[in-house]
Amino acid sequence: MAGYLRALVFSSEQGRERISSRTLADMVGVNPWQVRKDFSYFGDFGTRGVGYSIEKLTKQIRKILKLDVVQKAALVGVGNLGSAVLEHPGFGLYGFDIAFAFDADPRKVGSKIKDVLIEDVSNLRTLKKRKIKLGIIAVPRRAAQETADKLVEAGVKGILSFSPRYITVPKRIKVITIDIAMDLARLPYYMPSG
Amino acid sequence: MAGYLRALVFSSEQGRERISSRTLADMVGVNPWQVRKDFSYFGDFGTRGVGYSIEKLTKQIRKILKLDVVQKAALVGVGNLGSAVLEHPGFGLYGFDIAFAFDADPRKVGSKIKDVLIEDVSNLRTLKKRKIKLGIIAVPRRAAQETADKLVEAGVKGILSFSPRYITVPKRIKVITIDIAMDLARLPYYMPSG
Repeated sequence: MAGYLRALVFSSEQGRERISSRTLADMVGVNPWQVRKDFSYFGDFGTRGVGYSIEKLTKQIRKILKLDVVQKAALVGVGNLGSAVLEHPGFGLYGFDIAFAFDADPRKVGSKIKDVLIEDVSNLRTLKKRKIKLGIIAVPRRAAQETADKLVEAGVKGILSFSPRYITVPKRIKVITIDIAMDLARLPYYMPSG
Repeated sequence: MAGYLRALVFSSEQGRERISSRTLADMVGVNPWQVRKDFSYFGDFGTRGVGYSIEKLTKQIRKILKLDVVQKAALVGVGNLGSAVLEHPGFGLYGFDIAFAFDADPRKVGSKIKDVLIEDVSNLRTLKKRKIKLGIIAVPRRAAQETADKLVEAGVKGILSFSPRYITVPKRIKVITIDIAMDLARLPYYMPSG
């Protein structure tokens, strides 16, 4: 579903208003019948021969993914990766607002990236009061588990972790891990040799 | 398969020599029978009750994924994200060597990150001579397609793209896209509301 949303947002930016199941399928990398099946399950958004209304479909998918309200997130670790996250244009498109950022380095604390003030990590305990449900971990690997523990303690319900280290959290917390190196590891298998 | 490799590398770093299908399954997020099925297909690496030899299994998976030889890669774009890629400890673990880096900013050209010299993007055309098959795109979105075209022209067979923009390449080229914002978009769906 998130893949469809990405394709729709991109098509809308290109100035398109309607999209066929075939085009959508090509962009996401599935079969057209899969697209039609996925959307029929949530109600019919398309008209045969005319395609789907990008605006309507985007709205529905946002609702399904619970992205129809702005989701505020807190970022921990403002090194190169954390800075890249703050500067990434995509988060806003999906309804995210990385509202708070934390770092352990006193030289970074107090400065701003993209209007977000970098606070000391000790402030993490005040997240509960700020009603933050989403945490993003971009700290060095040795600090990953400790950061996860603090986020959970502060009431976070979902974590996006960029750490190559495994983190352990209570079962009620949803963790999504992005290991950028592991994604590269999938490539050679598909490449012709020689 | 790449997920198994990640779990095995981590377990090995923890000093373990054998691993059960159950532990491996928990780390990767699948069922133990799925682990046993996946590995039986490639020959039997495990002994009932003793678990798999981490060393042997790692070696076999590296071979399957064509990661048993060092794969050299070229990185284009050394902003925050590109720098994070160069500094990421994980690439070496999977057998990758990000040997070359390119940027369009003359202030960056000539400097080094992690012993990798940053070259001007115009040098991309010399990649063919250097026999580089893997390219990593970490440039701003407006430069993504142009960068992809240059990499393909230079003989690259696989591309890992961090651009939120869709890139178009000939069918023979394998592209894996990491949209860090899209991964965050999958989280709210799984989170309890309220």
